[in-house]
Amino acid sequence: MYLNRTRAEQLMTAAGVEALVLFSPENFRYATGTPAGAAAMWRRAGGAIAVVPASADAPIASIISDFQLESSEQSRRLEDVRTFPAWVDMADYRDIPDDAGLAESFQSSTSALVRPATFDRNRVFDLLDDVLRERGLQASNIGADFDFLPARDLASLSARLPNQRFVDATDLIRRLRLVKSPAETANLRSACRLAEAGLKNLSENIAAGHSSTDLSSAWRSGVDTTARSTGVGAVDTWDYISVGVDPWDGNAKVVPGSVVKADVGCIVSGYCSDSARTYVFGEPSRLAAGIFSCLEQAFMDGLGMFRPGVMLRDIHAATLASIQRYGLKSYSRGHFGHSVGAAVGIEEWPFISADSEIVLEPGMVMAFETPFYANGLGALMIEDQLLITESGCEVMNTLPRGLTRMS
Amino acid sequence: MYLNRTRAEQLMTAAGVEALVLFSPENFRYATGTPAGAAAMWRRAGGAIAVVPASADAPIASIISDFQLESSEQSRRLEDVRTFPAWVDMADYRDIPDDAGLAESFQSSTSALVRPATFDRNRVFDLLDDVLRERGLQASNIGADFDFLPARDLASLSARLPNQRFVDATDLIRRLRLVKSPAETANLRSACRLAEAGLKNLSENIAAGHSSTDLSSAWRSGVDTTARSTGVGAVDTWDYISVGVDPWDGNAKVVPGSVVKADVGCIVSGYCSDSARTYVFGEPSRLAAGIFSCLEQAFMDGLGMFRPGVMLRDIHAATLASIQRYGLKSYSRGHFGHSVGAAVGIEEWPFISADSEIVLEPGMVMAFETPFYANGLGALMIEDQLLITESGCEVMNTLPRGLTRMS
Repeated sequence: MYLNRTRAEQLMTAAGVEALVLFSPENFRYATGTPAGAAAMWRRAGGAIAVVPASADAPIASIISDFQLESSEQSRRLEDVRTFPAWVDMADYRDIPDDAGLAESFQSSTSALVRPATFDRNRVFDLLDDVLRERGLQASNIGADFDFLPARDLASLSARLPNQRFVDATDLIRRLRLVKSPAETANLRSACRLAEAGLKNLSENIAAGHSSTDLSSAWRSGVDTTARSTGVGAVDTWDYISVGVDPWDGNAKVVPGSVVKADVGCIVSGYCSDSARTYVFGEPSRLAAGIFSCLEQAFMDGLGMFRPGVMLRDIHAATLASIQRYGLKSYSRGHFGHSVGAAVGIEEWPFISADSEIVLEPGMVMAFETPFYANGLGALMIEDQLLITESGCEVMNTLPRGLTRMS
Repeated sequence: MYLNRTRAEQLMTAAGVEALVLFSPENFRYATGTPAGAAAMWRRAGGAIAVVPASADAPIASIISDFQLESSEQSRRLEDVRTFPAWVDMADYRDIPDDAGLAESFQSSTSALVRPATFDRNRVFDLLDDVLRERGLQASNIGADFDFLPARDLASLSARLPNQRFVDATDLIRRLRLVKSPAETANLRSACRLAEAGLKNLSENIAAGHSSTDLSSAWRSGVDTTARSTGVGAVDTWDYISVGVDPWDGNAKVVPGSVVKADVGCIVSGYCSDSARTYVFGEPSRLAAGIFSCLEQAFMDGLGMFRPGVMLRDIHAATLASIQRYGLKSYSRGHFGHSVGAAVGIEEWPFISADSEIVLEPGMVMAFETPFYANGLGALMIEDQLLITESGCEVMNTLPRGLTRMS
């Protein structure tokens, strides 16, 4: 469980919400600490549901498929778990001798005899109804993640549980998720370290003739090798790597003077990192070096502002002013970074933007970035992941931030 | 564009829908043939919208971010494209000499001077309103993908466009997407071929002491190498690889007799393949060999039924009956496969399930599978991708289906 029950209770009490019902796979993972499982692949309501009562003493209830319960040791440790039949049958052969007959050997490990095509959404909603009844949450104000909940599924839910009132708790949930627990921070730190291992391998593969696809493969291989040697296991990754003067030319190859921008991340237990570094093969152009220096100085100015009590819009204003002052007078940008976490995309609310009144608090993890994209020059970018501490911030990245010359 | 306008017009006319407004990134890609772009990362309505009028002569309208238009050559070829400002600024340096001053050098390539934190959903909805007005689609019956559209965004949309009536077109859209165009089939075939290259490399790496993570890395590396050498470029992949007698033990290592099940796929231009093969290191247990033989025979029985006119529930019934007849008398399973395409998860409707009255048609691409999961024995699985042709089906896979012995 990554969720802070005390904080959840405070936010729910303030909002007049008696429980949260979380339908998105990301929110399920956040509330329970366990993956939502295969039934969540369709991103429809009911694949996995977490019920978080406002009262911090009341256990969180999880509704998952029987397949997920059977296949995940983590799921079996959940405190109040209800299951629905999935499409997958499972058998138990642990006590079957190898000379048993086929027909006699097969013993389904669950009681479902006929399995649905995927899962029966109404059956899942009935389990939710059970939980709400048992917890005395009938006809309550129930908050749900309406930023995920498909309109079709909300209609089904309302038809199946006509006496329950579900309200949009998007704002409450994102406020709740704003401050990370130590376990969440550990995932983000681990993901960031793997990404740096990948970047290191990428940088060592910057050579004449290599394309962004080659470098993507080198990045990925660096991540894989380190993930395996450190016992993290298989991780998903993402990357936006550009080579040369056209940031959008996926076929460009490294030539002397090429800039290489690598904006990359790893996903560890659902938590997605985000960092970027820029390299140059040989000597950069005068303008590329000048613009990078401007981005780097502005980055350092902005970085110095990350501490509790600072409003995000002030960091946006200062960083933008710095970039303009150091030379790029008409540069504009909607955000200089964002929160990171168990997000569906890479970037999570809140954003370091001109309109954000969010104030930094200890435990927030932010990605801070100064990107530049120009056709005819290339992409340049610095991005670090920062944990806000009591007195300032801890930079999770360790790689040098400069325009690193390779070869 | 992957969408068949004639088929779309027929389905919309039959349903009394005058246009489709598609909000999901997958549906956007399906309708336009181009990626939805970075603004779609949050999976919220408005990141990218496609408007498909019922009349097959009326052009499809695309609403995307200015960043996406600038950065994607594919997007610039769209026939009727409207853009909204994204958070990313872009400059044009193609005519700037390297000795230019920094301040003078920077010229934004778009007209947005102040950029939003992410994107302004109301502004996007206003662009949608423009399209609907221009096309004479005011106060019409507009079908939308309610299986994606978040409840929060439908509320915003209804508030911003109060005179438009949006109806749930989930069933219509999935019917439309059921039959693939040649371009979609080509993506799925390419993805399937890459996956087989990965499987080949995986199988060559089955050796004592290797874990599922090692094999995942080998699979991925095989895909990467082939994707790069064949010019496909970087592809995303997914894999469920299990080693040994416990299908859920991620730390298991290959020992003599271990079965290795690899259920894997690649994503090419948003289209996701799905195939599986099973290997054994050395000699399989008697039971594993017997069960696999049963799955393989049942697979061949089911495979023989894939041709136009056959109902999916009949394939389910026959495959289930075969598995039971060949020995696993109490085996049960919700589906023996599913459609594949530009799906959010791996599996796309329709499913080869007991209740499916969908009838095979030429152009459908199905993944057909006979899986088996047992703690104490391991996971065993065969899965092929099939294109339904005029007279039968084309199997996209080429690797042998047997329980392949390695070393």
